[in-house]
Amino acid sequence: MSSHHIVRDDQEPALIIANGAACDPELLGQLLEWSPLVIVLDSAIERVIDLGIKVDVLLGDFDHGFDPESYKTAQYPIEIVYAPDQNKTDLEKAFDYLIDRKIPAANVVWATGRRADHTITNLTNIVRYRNLLKIVILDDHSKIFLLPRKFEKWYTAKTPISLIPIGVVNGIFSTNLEYPLENDTLTIGYRTGSSNSVKNDGLVTITHTDGDLLLMECMD
Amino acid sequence: MSSHHIVRDDQEPALIIANGAACDPELLGQLLEWSPLVIVLDSAIERVIDLGIKVDVLLGDFDHGFDPESYKTAQYPIEIVYAPDQNKTDLEKAFDYLIDRKIPAANVVWATGRRADHTITNLTNIVRYRNLLKIVILDDHSKIFLLPRKFEKWYTAKTPISLIPIGVVNGIFSTNLEYPLENDTLTIGYRTGSSNSVKNDGLVTITHTDGDLLLMECMD
Repeated sequence: MSSHHIVRDDQEPALIIANGAACDPELLGQLLEWSPLVIVLDSAIERVIDLGIKVDVLLGDFDHGFDPESYKTAQYPIEIVYAPDQNKTDLEKAFDYLIDRKIPAANVVWATGRRADHTITNLTNIVRYRNLLKIVILDDHSKIFLLPRKFEKWYTAKTPISLIPIGVVNGIFSTNLEYPLENDTLTIGYRTGSSNSVKNDGLVTITHTDGDLLLMECMD
Repeated sequence: MSSHHIVRDDQEPALIIANGAACDPELLGQLLEWSPLVIVLDSAIERVIDLGIKVDVLLGDFDHGFDPESYKTAQYPIEIVYAPDQNKTDLEKAFDYLIDRKIPAANVVWATGRRADHTITNLTNIVRYRNLLKIVILDDHSKIFLLPRKFEKWYTAKTPISLIPIGVVNGIFSTNLEYPLENDTLTIGYRTGSSNSVKNDGLVTITHTDGDLLLMECMD
């Protein structure tokens, strides 16, 4: 597999390859086709290199005893970003890097699976990037993103839609969902909107007044 | 693999096999050795049967077009629990079933991986069973449970410990962690205690005044 950097346009989402479970190479290949910038987190580089992917940026704290400099020749002109801040995850540092470069959007793969603490942290921490970076996390079964206060998208009937509140989310209304929300409140751990689905082919709208609401499109 | 039901004591944790990614058969085998009661959720039975496991209870809404009755002979005397409530996940229904039977504890496997909506729902919904059922979720990389207001356990140095607040958790104090907590507040999505670790061989104590705090012991 190789990445074809046809579109060198910073308006396209960058692709971040994190350090969780690998996704289907088919999904990775599709994302690479359209990604002007590929960022790999820390020691994930070892698994990425094996797939023959051209990497633009390698970012991490590199505290796992491997030498990032060794990739400078094979991946020339790779940029190596040493990011030692122990108060942030490598994924957050990658988001910060993109914001600094004024790149507006990122797709993220390999951010789920393996360690549950990393999975839940990666999924839930995207909420703090509201208005800073448009983030989509993808794996073989899931596509996850933070909803704006008003969300509208065309879906086919029966598409599974899960609404996961990160904390408490108030004033939720929906149209065209199997289990409609009508000024509802969702609370993580106590009342979530998991396992809903689209009623008819057409627009789904979801609005909420406050809080952080993730939408997950998930399939078995 | 077979389960050896040596200990038919309802004080031992039941084992719930959910419908996410399968774990290492070695982990499953260890848990089966000590589980007086094995509950399988819905169509996971198809994968469980292939492993040669003796199942005590099959529970679900069975809306995926398979016939639970077909397991009655092969798994005699299996109990089949039809649980159609669409407002609860199959895992929650299994917890309710155990509470009804006055079984005090459950280990849960196959509850993570695959669909991210199921993973996050399974991990976070255990908080509502505080004081009702002692729940531990396990997979190949993780062991997850809800902390009581005061928690104390002996760990070896460098054991990774992640503290994940389900909502907001106040008044957190710790001893013997690498990054100590001192009357701290953690908030899901904004400030979590992921990727901490044990400082020295010995007791770790973690206390908090309110909120729901998960402890995750995770390893790569």
